[in-house]
Amino acid sequence: MRIARYGEPGQERPFAAGSDGVWRDLSPLVDDVTGATLATVLDADLSVLPAAQPEGRVGPPLARIGKVICVGLNYRDHAAETGADIPDEPILFMKAPDTVVGPDDSVRIPQGSMKTDWEVELAVVIGSQARYLSSPAEAAACIAGYAISHDVSERAFQLERGGQWDKGKNCETFNPFGPVLVSADEVTDPQALGLRLRVNGAVMQDGTTADMVFGVDHLVWYISQFMVLRPGDVINTGTPAGVALGRADAPYLRAGDVVEIEIDGLGAQRQEMVSA
Amino acid sequence: MRIARYGEPGQERPFAAGSDGVWRDLSPLVDDVTGATLATVLDADLSVLPAAQPEGRVGPPLARIGKVICVGLNYRDHAAETGADIPDEPILFMKAPDTVVGPDDSVRIPQGSMKTDWEVELAVVIGSQARYLSSPAEAAACIAGYAISHDVSERAFQLERGGQWDKGKNCETFNPFGPVLVSADEVTDPQALGLRLRVNGAVMQDGTTADMVFGVDHLVWYISQFMVLRPGDVINTGTPAGVALGRADAPYLRAGDVVEIEIDGLGAQRQEMVSA
Repeated sequence: MRIARYGEPGQERPFAAGSDGVWRDLSPLVDDVTGATLATVLDADLSVLPAAQPEGRVGPPLARIGKVICVGLNYRDHAAETGADIPDEPILFMKAPDTVVGPDDSVRIPQGSMKTDWEVELAVVIGSQARYLSSPAEAAACIAGYAISHDVSERAFQLERGGQWDKGKNCETFNPFGPVLVSADEVTDPQALGLRLRVNGAVMQDGTTADMVFGVDHLVWYISQFMVLRPGDVINTGTPAGVALGRADAPYLRAGDVVEIEIDGLGAQRQEMVSA
Repeated sequence: MRIARYGEPGQERPFAAGSDGVWRDLSPLVDDVTGATLATVLDADLSVLPAAQPEGRVGPPLARIGKVICVGLNYRDHAAETGADIPDEPILFMKAPDTVVGPDDSVRIPQGSMKTDWEVELAVVIGSQARYLSSPAEAAACIAGYAISHDVSERAFQLERGGQWDKGKNCETFNPFGPVLVSADEVTDPQALGLRLRVNGAVMQDGTTADMVFGVDHLVWYISQFMVLRPGDVINTGTPAGVALGRADAPYLRAGDVVEIEIDGLGAQRQEMVSA
């Protein structure tokens, strides 16, 4: 199943498409797609719902996200380009859910920013509670599906302003998400997905989730030892090499730049950078 | 005005008491106390609402918290006891809102934890949006009120497991909050409040918000340069000296320990530590 939400910010309506590819209006079934309704949506017989072609702005495919847990330095080539060692265990940090915007919404370059950077990431959407899982083998049962996250990052705020990375990760509009939430049963192997990101048409990132240091199941198991993962939580699983921070010419984003992102089977994003 | 919520977790009902000290049932006015309804509650004429003595479990005084932004090393004596320099600018990290529990709820010592620590903190509750404030003088207009936060912290997870502090700050039940949200007009000077914390009756922290490195108005202004503060967001403003991490005998919390917390004018908390 593919799930999407269309409409102006805060006014989105939920839709889903099953194996027949026909988009259906989820409104008769649920008020919105949230952690509380995800199971109902994923179990639904879509054929009884009205066919409806979604139109207008694409919103994030999940509303009322509980928390966004991010994994740092989770691709060997990205750790190397930033001058960091490959971590012994996953590095975790947080994005606030109010940073999430639609996949094609503008991204605001923060006031005073000189180092706004891009990061294409595979997002894992939690479907049922994960708390102290006993092994990574238990992770799959907790995963509702997958989507694209753009983990926009201000490197000076993150690394040069004292303390913790969160300061450069929580700026307004810094987490474009979607366009679709693809249910886990339609993603044959989450560790075999190509990820690509272009800036103004030039390919900047071209990786594969096969190169993750810690795979999706390991991450869900690991995170569940430190916090409770609940339905509607999102994990941003890290980014491959190719960010501006890792490039000799440091081509950080400026107003007017256009970022395009794709992950195999999960659709595409396109954002224009604007001044905050 | 003092605002409180009573009832079982997820079933709390909202109450408020004004200058006459009489508790009133807010249910005829709002469905709950949230970022969306805070202004309505604070502007309400309580005298027209039914008097009602709250009973039962005390919940957090605010529901649907958007994000919890925490400030690190914000008291000189606490920075010193942890061996850190006094920061040049505020250190920020995040707690997920689902760590928030009632002020007297049990705190769960995480599985595998050897270093669960306490931190009494003054919490600032945001009442109206703060985005790129031009000066700290604009902060007061954005503050709805104050409450007690207990920023429970697992030091090994925070400092010895790779990466960012968030890993030791987001464990289940790690943010007891309340008992009351006291409106800003009733807190004459937020920089002149005594804070105290006892473990099993022994005083461990006994400080004053006068010793903050960065005061409340500075913090709201500062944070607003990096992220948007919205109604219903909470800022945990840091803790004074006296945590287990700073003590030679490292008396970290164990199941069965009892933590009691007070801040002048904001009430008191009491938590029993239990095994997760």
